[in-house]
Amino acid sequence: MWRHNIYSGDVLKVSDIGEVKLINKLFSIMGGPGGITGFDDVVAVKTDRVAVVVKTDSFVESADRLPGMPPEAIGHKTVVMNVSDFAAKGVKPMGMLVSLAVPPDTDVGFLEIIYKGMVKAAASYGFRVMGGDTSTSRELILAGFLFGVQKPDLIVQRRGAKTGDIVATTGFFGDTACAYMILLKHMSPGDQVLERRLVNHAYFPEARLKEGLALASHRLASAAIDCSDGLAVTLHQLAEASCVGILIDNVPVSPDAKKYAEYYGLDPVELALYRGGEEFELVVTIPEEKWYEACKVVESVGGRLLRLGRVVSRIGVFINMDGEEKPVKLKGWEHFKGWV
Amino acid sequence: MWRHNIYSGDVLKVSDIGEVKLINKLFSIMGGPGGITGFDDVVAVKTDRVAVVVKTDSFVESADRLPGMPPEAIGHKTVVMNVSDFAAKGVKPMGMLVSLAVPPDTDVGFLEIIYKGMVKAAASYGFRVMGGDTSTSRELILAGFLFGVQKPDLIVQRRGAKTGDIVATTGFFGDTACAYMILLKHMSPGDQVLERRLVNHAYFPEARLKEGLALASHRLASAAIDCSDGLAVTLHQLAEASCVGILIDNVPVSPDAKKYAEYYGLDPVELALYRGGEEFELVVTIPEEKWYEACKVVESVGGRLLRLGRVVSRIGVFINMDGEEKPVKLKGWEHFKGWV
Repeated sequence: MWRHNIYSGDVLKVSDIGEVKLINKLFSIMGGPGGITGFDDVVAVKTDRVAVVVKTDSFVESADRLPGMPPEAIGHKTVVMNVSDFAAKGVKPMGMLVSLAVPPDTDVGFLEIIYKGMVKAAASYGFRVMGGDTSTSRELILAGFLFGVQKPDLIVQRRGAKTGDIVATTGFFGDTACAYMILLKHMSPGDQVLERRLVNHAYFPEARLKEGLALASHRLASAAIDCSDGLAVTLHQLAEASCVGILIDNVPVSPDAKKYAEYYGLDPVELALYRGGEEFELVVTIPEEKWYEACKVVESVGGRLLRLGRVVSRIGVFINMDGEEKPVKLKGWEHFKGWV
Repeated sequence: MWRHNIYSGDVLKVSDIGEVKLINKLFSIMGGPGGITGFDDVVAVKTDRVAVVVKTDSFVESADRLPGMPPEAIGHKTVVMNVSDFAAKGVKPMGMLVSLAVPPDTDVGFLEIIYKGMVKAAASYGFRVMGGDTSTSRELILAGFLFGVQKPDLIVQRRGAKTGDIVATTGFFGDTACAYMILLKHMSPGDQVLERRLVNHAYFPEARLKEGLALASHRLASAAIDCSDGLAVTLHQLAEASCVGILIDNVPVSPDAKKYAEYYGLDPVELALYRGGEEFELVVTIPEEKWYEACKVVESVGGRLLRLGRVVSRIGVFINMDGEEKPVKLKGWEHFKGWV
C-alpha cells in the first residue's frame, strides 16, 4: 500500500535499472562495500591476526532452477556458487549457514534431497553446512552464507592485475551456454549422450577450490575472479577492477561445446564468450615470471591453467584470434534484465 | 514436476510437521548443528585464538511484514532480529551481509528506504552492512547474515544454567502481543497514543546488545537466549538446553500492555507469556552470588535486569504467582503452523 501512496504513478522499478545500478544504489546507502578488499567477490574484515571472510549467494527457484533440475542439484549448486567466490579469493571455507524460505505446502522429502545435495557438495569441499534458519514464503529460496578466515595478505583480490601479466583460466567454456539452449530453447544436439553431459554440467557445476587455494597459498596470482556471469562479463569485471585492459588470443572452448556449435552452425567462440554463465572457472592474472610455477602448482592439485591472453595498459577487453583485433562486448546475463 | 512424480499423492508437507520437526530433520541430514556450542542461537567455529561467530535470520514479506509496517521498519527489523542473537551470546557484530530477493517490478525507492533502515539500525549497534547479493524472486526476502569473533570461553551458551541460578530478563513483556492484536485482529485499545506506542514497539523493536555484551565480558551469565518466539517458548528452550527446570514468580508486564489488557478484560500475564513474540528481550540465568554485580553491570550500560524466578532441578517450566503453582505451557508462534 505504501508503494502507491508515496510514489503516485511515477515508480522506478528494479527492472528499469537492472542489477548493476541497483547494487550501486544500495552500496551508496551502505557507504560503499565493507572490508579490506573494497568491491569484490567476498567481504573480508580484518580482526586480530586474520581476516574473517564472508560471502552470500542465493538460489531462487523461479530465477535459478533450470527446467528438469533435480533437487539434489539445487542443493549442490547453492553450495558451489558460494564456494566458487572463496576459491577465487584463495580462502578455505570454514562452514556454511543456509537461510531457507519455503511455501508451507512444500514436500518435506523434496527439501531433504536438497539438503543432502548441499551436505554432499560441502563435504567434497572440506566443510559442513552448520545451521541456518527457516521461514515460510511464496517460493523456495536458499540463501547460502559461507564463512572462513584467511591471512589478509594471502587474499587474492579482483584488483591487482598489472600490464604484462598472463591472463589464464582453470577450464573450458561453452558447456553451460549449450545447456541453456537445450533447456530453455529446446535446441537438442541430436545426440542423447552429448545432451546429457552438457545438461549435467549446468546442473552439477564444480568450484575450482583446490586450484584457487594452491595459487593463493603460493602467492602466484596478482588478481582473480570466478566466472559466474559469462566469460565476457568476467573479463570486463577483472579489467575494470585493476584499471587495466585485457587482450585475449585464445578462448578454450570445450570439445562438447564445439560439437554442439557445429551441429547448429554457431560460432563456438561467441557461444563461450557471451552465452554462458555459471561455469565457475576461475579467471586469474599471473605475473609472467611466475607462470611456470603457477602451472605446476595447479597441476599438482589435479587442475590445469589455460592461457587466455595478456593484461594490457589500454582500457577495455579485446580479442585477437586471426590477426584481427576486435573489442569483446560487455554482454551476458544480468538479473532483473535478462540477457543484455 | 519432480514432486508429483516420485511422491505419488502421499506427500508430507512442511506444514504437516512444523518448523521444529523440519529443523530436526534438516539437522539430521547435516550431521547435527556445527560449531562449539551445539544447537544454539548462533554458530561459533573455533579458529586460531578466537571463534568466528555467525547467524542468519530472514525477513520474508508475506510472513513477517505486519500490516502497515513501513519500509524503514523492514530494514530495521532485519538487523535487529540478527543482532539480538549476538546480544544473547555476548558477541559484538563485526558486519552484516544481506541477500536480497525481490520481484523485478519492485519500486527502487521502496528498497532504498529499507536499506536506509538497515544501515541506520546497524550503525546504532556499532557495525556496517557490508555487502551481499541481489536476485529476482516472487516476493521480497531479506536474508541477513551477521558475523563476528569472540573468545570461545566468553560466548554465553543456551546451556549452562544451574539449579539455584536466578532467571532474569532485560525488559518488559506484552507490548508486541498487544500490537499483534491491534494489527491482525483490529482490536484497537480506544486510545490513539497508546495504540501508536504499542504498534511502534512491534515495528521498531530493539536488541539488547549493550546488556548482553556487558554480562558476557564480565562472565556473569551462566546461560542466555533472546526472546523471539514468545516468553513461554523461550523459557522452555532455555530450560531444555540445560536439562533443568524453571520456576518463575514474576512476569514483568509493561504498563502499556497492562492498560491494553484491562481495556479488553484480558489476563496480562497470559498475554505476556503466550501471545507475544519478537520482543527481543534477553532471558538470562545468573548464579546467585553474581546477581548484585550483574544488576550493576547492566545498569552501568543503561539497561536493567528484572527477576523472573529461579532455575530448579525438576524438568519443566512452572509459574507461581499467587501461592498456586501451574505449568507454563509450551505454546507460542511457530513458523509453518502459526500459533500453537
